[in-house]
Amino acid sequence: MSDQNPVFIPGPTNIPDRLRAAMHVQTRDHRAPDFVETFAPVLEDTKKVFGTTSGRVITFPASGTGGWEAALCNTLSPGDKVLVARYGMFSHRWIDMCERHGLDVQLIECPWGTGAPADKFEAALSADKSHSIKAVLVTHNETATGVKSDVAAVRGAMDAAAHPALLFVDCVSSLASMPFEMDSWGVDIAVSGSQKGFMLATGMAILGVSDKALAAMEAATLPRTFFDFKDMMGANASGGFPYTPPLQLIYGMRESLKMLLEEGLDNVYARHTRLAEGVRRAVGAWGLELVAQTPDLYSDTVSAIYVPSGFDSNALTDQAFNQYGVSFGVGLGEMNGKAFRIGHLGSLTDVMVLSGLATIEMAMADLDYPIELGSGVAAAQEHFRSKTGAAIKSAA
Amino acid sequence: MSDQNPVFIPGPTNIPDRLRAAMHVQTRDHRAPDFVETFAPVLEDTKKVFGTTSGRVITFPASGTGGWEAALCNTLSPGDKVLVARYGMFSHRWIDMCERHGLDVQLIECPWGTGAPADKFEAALSADKSHSIKAVLVTHNETATGVKSDVAAVRGAMDAAAHPALLFVDCVSSLASMPFEMDSWGVDIAVSGSQKGFMLATGMAILGVSDKALAAMEAATLPRTFFDFKDMMGANASGGFPYTPPLQLIYGMRESLKMLLEEGLDNVYARHTRLAEGVRRAVGAWGLELVAQTPDLYSDTVSAIYVPSGFDSNALTDQAFNQYGVSFGVGLGEMNGKAFRIGHLGSLTDVMVLSGLATIEMAMADLDYPIELGSGVAAAQEHFRSKTGAAIKSAA
Amino acid sequence: MSDQNPVFIPGPTNIPDRLRAAMHVQTRDHRAPDFVETFAPVLEDTKKVFGTTSGRVITFPASGTGGWEAALCNTLSPGDKVLVARYGMFSHRWIDMCERHGLDVQLIECPWGTGAPADKFEAALSADKSHSIKAVLVTHNETATGVKSDVAAVRGAMDAAAHPALLFVDCVSSLASMPFEMDSWGVDIAVSGSQKGFMLATGMAILGVSDKALAAMEAATLPRTFFDFKDMMGANASGGFPYTPPLQLIYGMRESLKMLLEEGLDNVYARHTRLAEGVRRAVGAWGLELVAQTPDLYSDTVSAIYVPSGFDSNALTDQAFNQYGVSFGVGLGEMNGKAFRIGHLGSLTDVMVLSGLATIEMAMADLDYPIELGSGVAAAQEHFRSKTGAAIKSAA
Amino acid sequence: MSDQNPVFIPGPTNIPDRLRAAMHVQTRDHRAPDFVETFAPVLEDTKKVFGTTSGRVITFPASGTGGWEAALCNTLSPGDKVLVARYGMFSHRWIDMCERHGLDVQLIECPWGTGAPADKFEAALSADKSHSIKAVLVTHNETATGVKSDVAAVRGAMDAAAHPALLFVDCVSSLASMPFEMDSWGVDIAVSGSQKGFMLATGMAILGVSDKALAAMEAATLPRTFFDFKDMMGANASGGFPYTPPLQLIYGMRESLKMLLEEGLDNVYARHTRLAEGVRRAVGAWGLELVAQTPDLYSDTVSAIYVPSGFDSNALTDQAFNQYGVSFGVGLGEMNGKAFRIGHLGSLTDVMVLSGLATIEMAMADLDYPIELGSGVAAAQEHFRSKTGAAIKSAA
Repeated sequence: MSDQNPVFIPGPTNIPDRLRAAMHVQTRDHRAPDFVETFAPVLEDTKKVFGTTSGRVITFPASGTGGWEAALCNTLSPGDKVLVARYGMFSHRWIDMCERHGLDVQLIECPWGTGAPADKFEAALSADKSHSIKAVLVTHNETATGVKSDVAAVRGAMDAAAHPALLFVDCVSSLASMPFEMDSWGVDIAVSGSQKGFMLATGMAILGVSDKALAAMEAATLPRTFFDFKDMMGANASGGFPYTPPLQLIYGMRESLKMLLEEGLDNVYARHTRLAEGVRRAVGAWGLELVAQTPDLYSDTVSAIYVPSGFDSNALTDQAFNQYGVSFGVGLGEMNGKAFRIGHLGSLTDVMVLSGLATIEMAMADLDYPIELGSGVAAAQEHFRSKTGAAIKSAA
Repeated sequence: MSDQNPVFIPGPTNIPDRLRAAMHVQTRDHRAPDFVETFAPVLEDTKKVFGTTSGRVITFPASGTGGWEAALCNTLSPGDKVLVARYGMFSHRWIDMCERHGLDVQLIECPWGTGAPADKFEAALSADKSHSIKAVLVTHNETATGVKSDVAAVRGAMDAAAHPALLFVDCVSSLASMPFEMDSWGVDIAVSGSQKGFMLATGMAILGVSDKALAAMEAATLPRTFFDFKDMMGANASGGFPYTPPLQLIYGMRESLKMLLEEGLDNVYARHTRLAEGVRRAVGAWGLELVAQTPDLYSDTVSAIYVPSGFDSNALTDQAFNQYGVSFGVGLGEMNGKAFRIGHLGSLTDVMVLSGLATIEMAMADLDYPIELGSGVAAAQEHFRSKTGAAIKSAA
Repeated sequence: MSDQNPVFIPGPTNIPDRLRAAMHVQTRDHRAPDFVETFAPVLEDTKKVFGTTSGRVITFPASGTGGWEAALCNTLSPGDKVLVARYGMFSHRWIDMCERHGLDVQLIECPWGTGAPADKFEAALSADKSHSIKAVLVTHNETATGVKSDVAAVRGAMDAAAHPALLFVDCVSSLASMPFEMDSWGVDIAVSGSQKGFMLATGMAILGVSDKALAAMEAATLPRTFFDFKDMMGANASGGFPYTPPLQLIYGMRESLKMLLEEGLDNVYARHTRLAEGVRRAVGAWGLELVAQTPDLYSDTVSAIYVPSGFDSNALTDQAFNQYGVSFGVGLGEMNGKAFRIGHLGSLTDVMVLSGLATIEMAMADLDYPIELGSGVAAAQEHFRSKTGAAIKSAA
Repeated sequence: MSDQNPVFIPGPTNIPDRLRAAMHVQTRDHRAPDFVETFAPVLEDTKKVFGTTSGRVITFPASGTGGWEAALCNTLSPGDKVLVARYGMFSHRWIDMCERHGLDVQLIECPWGTGAPADKFEAALSADKSHSIKAVLVTHNETATGVKSDVAAVRGAMDAAAHPALLFVDCVSSLASMPFEMDSWGVDIAVSGSQKGFMLATGMAILGVSDKALAAMEAATLPRTFFDFKDMMGANASGGFPYTPPLQLIYGMRESLKMLLEEGLDNVYARHTRLAEGVRRAVGAWGLELVAQTPDLYSDTVSAIYVPSGFDSNALTDQAFNQYGVSFGVGLGEMNGKAFRIGHLGSLTDVMVLSGLATIEMAMADLDYPIELGSGVAAAQEHFRSKTGAAIKSAA
């Protein structure tokens, strides 16, 4: 496949040259004084992206999945009850992880295409008079369905039930692309990774952790060494790492934060909204439907789109890849064969999005979808045109 | 501007990662034995791209303009007569250079949008009974107008007039993108550069030189040192350079030739034709006209497109750049304000071309051009769709 | 600090340009068919480095420490007994991990500077009539002391005791630099990482796993999700990953294996021996002593060197870093302040080693060590000179 | 050869990562507004390195040799007399170029190992009552012999003779490494290149030009187009280029200037002096002699060193390259076989220099030179040790 074409998978994202250069660093000594000077500000600046001043940031050389495991192991004990809703592949995986780690999962099944059910959470929490539920787990942006959940509403539910459970949020595919307010939403652990909104290579799990979560460590008996918060915080305090740090990613993270803060987080979010809306206009022009059931659930980082009845979404993504050299997200889990996904996060321009829309239109036409070539492109062009301003031309 | 968006200037072209990596080499000793092993095959393989077996390849650390100067200085003497037609900015510049170097220019003025006038050349050469014309200069691909000239026809004219003049061809923006047959066309010096079909950074002039041109060196009295063929050939023969070589570009050239020969030159040419035709379909859908007057003149590397009467092409390219972060070619010389240009050469995919078309449509709509958003994109999509095959997805 | 100077820490190693370029890849779709074609041969070729044909290779996006955790979690259950000897910081850390994961550690304390005590292992295993010991853990190359243990002898001890325990080996700082024979030594899990002999960035744990270890998974109840062997093997079988793979490192690994196999593993090992011996000659010329107690224990990847009585090794490494911009390994654990370390592994030449020796000599002289400037360099030069052959000039 | 070892040729120099990254830029539109903003400050900052406020900087995509040709062609006419001294290969080449361009060379032969003879210049200029000498040409740093000439003394000679000739100086291998004072020395054209003190790839000629030189353009009739000052200045004035600019080198130049000015030019010069003196101490310890005849002539960027009688310097540099993978400068011209050269300019540290000295010692020992291994290294170590300060550890 041509390296020249952008990818439209919902992460890892297209990596801007600036960040590729930043990660291209030669080996340096991670025990030398200059590493300290590099790493401490990275942790500090990342707090701005999480929307926290009271929490702290902890990273591990791992993927986002490793970040989830770290969240559970450091705060919970075998047999602890957790409250989770399943409404997509990534919320499903988190449930699976809880079960494997011996947690007692109180599960709320929801239709795929919906988000975290604050009302049902409130009911469950209110019913839990003994406070046996130790944590509520929410996937902020369900990458499989393109659904953004309302974390503030979940916090509201917990408060309404006056329940002391911890609130854990998977923001892997939302952080640094959509607003995240760890402090005001009362999130205790937020889990993300390097390869989405931070536009870096895969390999660093990035967590925001509240004091309340840290306090829970003392009683937590799930075993942990690699993912131990205390070891990491202790080493970080003196500028070190409990084992070999992923130096290239840390340098990349430093530059990524510079890019994000130079553009301004609000501008970053606005850009994602504009790009996402362009895609949604195209979907409308094609006469197709999003998996996300209502506009308040629409994700600004990924759109999952149902193919028409009788069509196979895998054939569509295969055609786009094999014939035109462009990768789109396949339908995952329940959505396999039924929906494809367009990732529109990270370092992306209007121009790049239009090339993705033009490509998928050709693939749809090749497979005799009832769509008109250029129609989605035109709808997105109209949207992108109507928005003017200095920020538009820049990717990030 | 976003580095993520492709450029649509007619060179320098978008550089594929593979070639950027190849040029990223650390300093090596150009007097060491391994340089010889690197450079000799590069010269040899470049002959394939020029379409020559009997000629030789000579390079200089310079731009294509330096290559032109090398061609003149090594073969001509002050006062020598050269026959040239002016039909665009680049043929104009060559004429200017001849005059500055004290050559006697016999000029044939042609409308911009036409190509090298073989019939007029034949008439002029036939009239030159004393053979005072020492060289005929042809711009194969006039980058300012998107016109490809018929070099074989010029050779036919020279043969018909039984004239012994040298034939010099500027193939800066055609070589390695459109067929070039130095030997069968009887070209004596072909001048190109690193930054177009070879997809590299600017900085290396690349010449194909016939034995007849080399023989002309003995009598040529125009001064030359930096651009001296004999010094360069002498040093190259033992694997060296008469001064410091542009090492990074030589390594880049080696990899570029690998890419071109892996794809197959015929496939490279076919890809350029397909991409160019997609652009031309878009131009038709917009109801606009090419500067190139007839289809046989259409260039497969650059299209110059008249803006409608009453519009300013500079405002259009400015809008594309300022609002959407995409560079197109401005109108040069006579075409300034009247036409803009879309470069479609080098490492480029269907997908990238569609993004350029979508962008310029938005810019045209912003400036109230009477075009329909998506119309050009749709016409190009239809063309790209109709062509299938394994080669399509790859850039090069 | 100057990026131009090599590092002499015992990993991460100096990364050759070829591998930096390989890891510089733009994002590609890890669910696309070409990823399969990339990854499967990487796993296969890595087996050659482990010295296994019957085992399999499993990787995780983590550091080597994560690899250790994976080894334990997939094969053991809380309360299981493991037999370990402590003779350095890294064997110590493994013991700590076992304890945190609820394993019952049968510990053999050994002096730092010695290696795995095969005789004591044999005694312990012979005494364990009930076969309550489930695994024997050995650090092949103790990076803190520069001691290489005899894994074959440990296997001999296990066989002599006819004990069925699993044999786990930490080869993080030996694999791909010193001979490793997983099959013939009967190793059940060998744990390594990307940043040492493979000369890559940190971020990939690399494990060799025997069928016997895989069989132990069924009964193992330590919780695991991120590090689950079964998930990883299942996804790998169809060319995938259970979560986002560290793409850049996988491409880097592909190129690293090419480099290692092009040089030839035996040549790689011989080069490390030559470089290490040069360092040891320098140590002798300085009149200093290695931490490793006897020549059979000398590591070919790192030398830990006692500073003279009354000197502080930390002051020495600080001086080298602050004054000359070169990083050496500090003394770890018991060795802190008493010994410094010279890493001589990965992509390294005689010339680079000499620059390290010259630097530490200056730092020693600055601190009034009783050594003669140039003496260690001369001893190493004499050794490097005496060894001739085509392989010498190349790093890898 | 290993890319890990530094080169010790007197240019092109080892390129720091920071500059390789800066030159790794993707194609941008050189006709776009942001190019102007990039290029103008580069020209301005380069003036600081030339030591001029009244002059201007002109660059061409060419090597330094192209820069010389530009100097001659823009200011002189065929038959013009120039005064030059020959004392090495590079002064020789300049003479050859003058002759090829039809200039009348008044030649002063000097022994290789000496520099520009101010006294003889003064005599010649005083004798030229008719002021037929139009220019005096001086090679500031003769790379072939490691001799630095006293340009101020030449200016003094010209002033003493009250001669109006232009003063042209080749500072290719001195600029940005040794002090250069264009204004105070009254230099009219100073010629340099990108690949020496600027630490970049080869491919950009860089000239400082005085108003007096510009005034000479009007009468100068040597033909020029590619190298025309007026075209270049005209285009530069509006942020453009008369042909395709070497974009990657311009971005590289911007970063190189940042590095030089961050370190501080005085610190850059002091670093070169320290490194050069270390090399000279080693030469003394070996009992060898420099080609430069007296200390005031010693170059701080390159040392040419006589091999003992009966030895062949080419065998020595071959041995260093073939056996140890390190490039040194061969003896050029008269010095071929008699002397080898150590380049010590650009981005270089004490540590790197020591590795070069250690290598050449091994090569000398291999060829039975009467030197003691480690002796030169020790002498340089002693020098490098005695100099302390924050600047030492950094390359640039």
